[in-house]
Amino acid sequence: MERPIGIFDSGVGGLTVAAAIKKVLPGESFIYFGDTQHAPYGDKSAETITRYSENITRFLLSQNCKAIVIACNSASAVAYSTLVQKFPQTVILNVIDPVVEFVATVTRGKVGIIATRATIQSGIYEKKLLQLNPKMEVVSAATPLLAPLIEEGFMHTDISQGAIREYLDDSKFNGLSTLILGCTHYPLIEREIQHFFGEKVSVVDSPELVARKLGKTLAENNLKNPATVADYRFYLSEKTTAFSSVARMFFGEGINLTEQRI
Amino acid sequence: MERPIGIFDSGVGGLTVAAAIKKVLPGESFIYFGDTQHAPYGDKSAETITRYSENITRFLLSQNCKAIVIACNSASAVAYSTLVQKFPQTVILNVIDPVVEFVATVTRGKVGIIATRATIQSGIYEKKLLQLNPKMEVVSAATPLLAPLIEEGFMHTDISQGAIREYLDDSKFNGLSTLILGCTHYPLIEREIQHFFGEKVSVVDSPELVARKLGKTLAENNLKNPATVADYRFYLSEKTTAFSSVARMFFGEGINLTEQRI
Repeated sequence: MERPIGIFDSGVGGLTVAAAIKKVLPGESFIYFGDTQHAPYGDKSAETITRYSENITRFLLSQNCKAIVIACNSASAVAYSTLVQKFPQTVILNVIDPVVEFVATVTRGKVGIIATRATIQSGIYEKKLLQLNPKMEVVSAATPLLAPLIEEGFMHTDISQGAIREYLDDSKFNGLSTLILGCTHYPLIEREIQHFFGEKVSVVDSPELVARKLGKTLAENNLKNPATVADYRFYLSEKTTAFSSVARMFFGEGINLTEQRI
Repeated sequence: MERPIGIFDSGVGGLTVAAAIKKVLPGESFIYFGDTQHAPYGDKSAETITRYSENITRFLLSQNCKAIVIACNSASAVAYSTLVQKFPQTVILNVIDPVVEFVATVTRGKVGIIATRATIQSGIYEKKLLQLNPKMEVVSAATPLLAPLIEEGFMHTDISQGAIREYLDDSKFNGLSTLILGCTHYPLIEREIQHFFGEKVSVVDSPELVARKLGKTLAENNLKNPATVADYRFYLSEKTTAFSSVARMFFGEGINLTEQRI
């Protein structure tokens, strides 16, 4: 077995990134850690999120992972620099930079960001977008109920549709051309969000951008896996119905799912 | 000014208890602390909830409070005994015991409890109810999205109605005669819950039971306030729209609301 990639999130959200990695890099194996016991991260303090992220990274490295993907925007926003500092030998990717690079160079017009409270309060998307493109018009909104409702499995219900309407029916989004889903959970309700805005707004597919960046980074570091068969393992700090069902939807019925406290 | 009562919760939920105290004990002043920065408590660990509860209690005691009401079920479930131990000179009430005493002695038939994950996982309601009435049939369900959706101000919307339906449309609640709202946020959607179950299920009004127990305890400890005019102060660890609007609904437009980190 070649060395796997380590991927983590507070829960089901990062599975959207894992699914994109499977699609874009079919030869790469991975170990996924969903910290369902502590989900959602989005309303926790930077210190708490950083502590959990460190513990999970240690666990993934103990499993011989060759690279770490922080598949959670809240952890990417507040814990990335600490992880890079504490694990200087390890290739670590966050989910924010690939999206910022793409949006700042490719898109035109007004950009919106929706994310958890932790991510929005960090201001990280605005800061990085404006660094690359100082003239960009950027608006953002915290949509803190979306991640927990996805974590509870309430996608494609009155609940998700009602919450999308309550949060996004806001004049600040008038004239929007691009929407960044600044939380890896949100692609699970991407169709509903796209439906709310209609075709005039382009919703950015972050998981695919992250998977492509990962492929490039692995190649640069001579870490690409020549294998053609990949192996996927899933660890959860607490088993939940939503996690099992989303993981099976993306990776099939026979997935290998283990409970593991951190 | 006579000494006030200290009341705290993770956010808006405890305002239902504060409102009942105002109604039942109109001569008593209080200081309310809503830990909106860390809300919801229901998905946090027992250690974290206990740490926040201790810090808030210290703050309330520094404001000369004569008694503390833990107006949050998650904190009552996991932090009450620590607070009693750490502050042995202080009268401390939780929101669970008054409800358990009432339900175990007064009601007949099957009892249901809905609450946050922290409260349900503690098993405290079942344990205490069965101690007082070992033959009682008790069922419970964690309904973790309800508190955050109330904290977001989404009462009386498709979102709250959808979530109630998703959680409560469960055969384990068949034949229920009494429902305990095991989270102080839930009285804010009590009408919607009552409407879901219909008149055959009696939903217990916990805030009023807590207020009556407080009146009795203050009298026993010679702490009752002879005043007829009361003063209410509100502290928030982070200002939120939902908090201001619920606080104004219960206590009028002219409320005294201060941001205070703990």
